[in-house]
Amino acid sequence: MKVTVIGLGPGGGADLTGRARAALEGCDLIVGYTAYIELVRPDFPEKAVLSTGMRREVDRCRAAVEAALTGKDVAVVCSGDSGVYGMAGLIYEVAQEYDPIEIEVVPGITAACGGAAVLGAPLTHDFAVISLSDLLTPWEKIEKRLSAAAQADFVICLYNPSSKSRPDYLRRACDILLREKAPDTVCGTVRNIGREGEEGQLLTLAQLRDTQVDMFTTVFIGNSQTKVLSGKMVTPRGYLQRGE
Amino acid sequence: MKVTVIGLGPGGGADLTGRARAALEGCDLIVGYTAYIELVRPDFPEKAVLSTGMRREVDRCRAAVEAALTGKDVAVVCSGDSGVYGMAGLIYEVAQEYDPIEIEVVPGITAACGGAAVLGAPLTHDFAVISLSDLLTPWEKIEKRLSAAAQADFVICLYNPSSKSRPDYLRRACDILLREKAPDTVCGTVRNIGREGEEGQLLTLAQLRDTQVDMFTTVFIGNSQTKVLSGKMVTPRGYLQRGE
Ligand SMILES: C[S@@+](CC[C@H](N)C(=O)[O-])C[C@H]1O[C@@H](n2cnc3c(N)ncnc32)[C@H](O)[C@@H]1O
Ligand SMILES: C[S@@+](CC[C@H](N)C(=O)[O-])C[C@H]1O[C@@H](n2cnc3c(N)ncnc32)[C@H](O)[C@@H]1O
Repeated sequence: MKVTVIGLGPGGGADLTGRARAALEGCDLIVGYTAYIELVRPDFPEKAVLSTGMRREVDRCRAAVEAALTGKDVAVVCSGDSGVYGMAGLIYEVAQEYDPIEIEVVPGITAACGGAAVLGAPLTHDFAVISLSDLLTPWEKIEKRLSAAAQADFVICLYNPSSKSRPDYLRRACDILLREKAPDTVCGTVRNIGREGEEGQLLTLAQLRDTQVDMFTTVFIGNSQTKVLSGKMVTPRGYLQRGE
Repeated sequence: MKVTVIGLGPGGGADLTGRARAALEGCDLIVGYTAYIELVRPDFPEKAVLSTGMRREVDRCRAAVEAALTGKDVAVVCSGDSGVYGMAGLIYEVAQEYDPIEIEVVPGITAACGGAAVLGAPLTHDFAVISLSDLLTPWEKIEKRLSAAAQADFVICLYNPSSKSRPDYLRRACDILLREKAPDTVCGTVRNIGREGEEGQLLTLAQLRDTQVDMFTTVFIGNSQTKVLSGKMVTPRGYLQRGE
């Protein structure tokens, strides 16, 4: 009858909103990538689940829409937000191939906001979110976005900063940013946000260039005003600087 | 003893995460802008509150830190996320003026993610978040960011798109975007996300230029691939386009 695309927040559990929790409670079937199903399994042990491996996104969305057409209320779960590099868009696209069904999108805390809270307050000014994955986006386009965001002094948040097949992408991204930004620009990385082993680290852009991170990490690059206060990464909004 | 800066999500209530709810339950005093206090009052009627009017941000943060220094557990509440144009950064800055206290940041669903869910899935690709308020940022810097984000084909999300003293800022922003982007670029506005009177609207960039919005609105400007599917604003991530 209906597909609800649900953002679980970075870690599920206490990161779930009331609306996400109610949608999960009300559904007949939970569909998602295996690792995300694991985030909600403990809270909803009796629900039917359909889990698929990584990179089976289109199959997963078709299965969800087809189950809804048989009369089920289907929850498609994503880590973080359901929209940001999530499944909400693909569900709408795939649903075009079938008879009309109802679709609802329930937002979640995206890794940018969840990770920012661990580091302090890096996102208090205009920011850009960029994925370094070139599976679906030509690398030239990613380069152009990195360069434009650096030139206009956005705080930059990088998703998918690395993977086995592209271990040097963060370094390549930093080299582009270093054309515009100072090597001592304040940066941060957060691994396993909201999950066991959550770990934040502050470093300079020059150091970030020579750091290895994995795909469970979100990377933050400050703007020209970002600073370290009491060990936290803080981008001033400007209230104090205005001299109030 | 402690200041916890809490993001309530766009509407409070069902948008609250479990972590935000627990932090509010555990606190001794809730500090915030009057309108945000109203979002949580119904759920926590017995809590002491300290509310202040708009534009008293520095006073509010000082009051929160001072109350924490007298031994209280203080919750500072923000709509949306606690970091994104929120109070988390200012709390860290203001705290530097006092003896050290513990500060925790609890993230919330930011208006970009909450509004995107209402419109469909506009944020499924790289995006930039820009505030049109020039109270704390020179307008030239805002123009530069708009222009850079448009040139690099980011989806763009505008906060503070308008106010009584700057009714024409959205028009000025659209004029800059129209130098780079097609007039029929898919755009959307969402008013009162997660609150009574929630209302989304789809329109073209040319139409957006001639539309009046208020300060309770978040504005979305698609990238070159964003389209309308079944009345929703959808930016494809590229799974289907890749030809899977
Ligand atoms: C396919 S994207 C999914 C993003 C997700 N929908 C969101 O809104 O956060 C995966 C990337 O998001 C980031 N990410 C998601 N969850 C994370 C977590 N718990 N800790 C750190 N990074 C995370 C990482 O950069 C990861 O490579
Ligand atoms: C000072 S900023 C606060 C942003 C907030 N911390 C967040 O993360 O969403 C205020 C702007 O956020 C957007 N906004 C916040 N809450 C909203 C809501 N419930 N509906 C629509 N827009 C909202 C509007 O653009 C508004 O002018």
